[in-house]
Amino acid sequence: MKRGRFITIEGGEGAGKSTHAARLAHSLERRGIPALVTREPGGTAEAERIRALLLDPGEAGWEAATEMLLHFAGRAENVAKTVKPALAAGRVVICDRFADSTLAYQGYGSGVPLAAIRSVGEAALDGFRPDFTVILDLDPALGLERARKRRTAADRYESEPLDFHRRVRDGFLEIAAAEPERCAVIGSAQDEDRVAEEILAAVLRRLDEPAS
Amino acid sequence: MKRGRFITIEGGEGAGKSTHAARLAHSLERRGIPALVTREPGGTAEAERIRALLLDPGEAGWEAATEMLLHFAGRAENVAKTVKPALAAGRVVICDRFADSTLAYQGYGSGVPLAAIRSVGEAALDGFRPDFTVILDLDPALGLERARKRRTAADRYESEPLDFHRRVRDGFLEIAAAEPERCAVIGSAQDEDRVAEEILAAVLRRLDEPAS
Repeated sequence: MKRGRFITIEGGEGAGKSTHAARLAHSLERRGIPALVTREPGGTAEAERIRALLLDPGEAGWEAATEMLLHFAGRAENVAKTVKPALAAGRVVICDRFADSTLAYQGYGSGVPLAAIRSVGEAALDGFRPDFTVILDLDPALGLERARKRRTAADRYESEPLDFHRRVRDGFLEIAAAEPERCAVIGSAQDEDRVAEEILAAVLRRLDEPAS
Repeated sequence: MKRGRFITIEGGEGAGKSTHAARLAHSLERRGIPALVTREPGGTAEAERIRALLLDPGEAGWEAATEMLLHFAGRAENVAKTVKPALAAGRVVICDRFADSTLAYQGYGSGVPLAAIRSVGEAALDGFRPDFTVILDLDPALGLERARKRRTAADRYESEPLDFHRRVRDGFLEIAAAEPERCAVIGSAQDEDRVAEEILAAVLRRLDEPAS
């Protein structure tokens, strides 16, 4: 059986990652391509317990390095127990956030050295990487407004200043510029249906390519 | 004010680490040397929540890499919020387990590549290291017997086979052999008072040296 592909959907707050992960899976399934959606932090029962720690940092707050390490701890679980088995079964796995989010948020946003994050990522995942990454790009001011409308409670990052979110956005764009083969930047200020079409087209082009 | 020293107490199950950390702190305090005992995993309110995850790995169990990353996540908290402030205040900080335990248990014991653990350690702690490490050495069969007598519930590692604990012991001895300046191996099959005396003597010799 052909190994599936691992697709990650990345971007800042309110960019529509979860919506588009679900829409993409639905569109692939309609074309007879088995797909699985997972999310990070989380994705397995155990990794969701790590997610709960991340979302409730306590009074003192986590050190930025701790947050980075907790993300990779959950990621090691999700990759071993959810992502790799589904890929081995020939499914397309769509992950709502992955290692690029840790680089963008803990690195570009919170100032953990990028080299340290990359080196932890190598050690945690033993070189495992997405086949293709969609970066949903949006002005952070607009993204935060969307995110706030959608939810009643603010999430971990919505309380960070706009500058933080600007650094995160610039981080995602730098990551995409450094790895144009892997990453496609799709503007998500557009109409949701249009964004979904662009994502699907980019992914279908990719799926015609041989698995790396 | 003079920066304090960071002393770690390492060793396998039942080697007496917690007992000797407390006894060492007491002996130092009696000599007018302010000391603080902390432990890992744990050491801060937040890191104790990570400890709780480690001690309750759920039905599926943690991946060895996840366990390693969770240990360093807690360690980054404990170093930043407990160890470094106490050192800055001139105290001797005694830590019951530290990074050598992660190398010995997750590396030598569970097979996570040592290079990966060292690289995560560098990234997590930014080069921060113990000034002095006491490795309490004991035949694992005897250590496990002691540990089982002491507790009613088995801990995370007591259910591992004897071979695991032999690899952990060999790991600690290799670490000590590679860094004789930092590490002192003290046999803990001896009488507890004798072990305490040897630890105190080794530490007092160290405290007369200038802080690195």
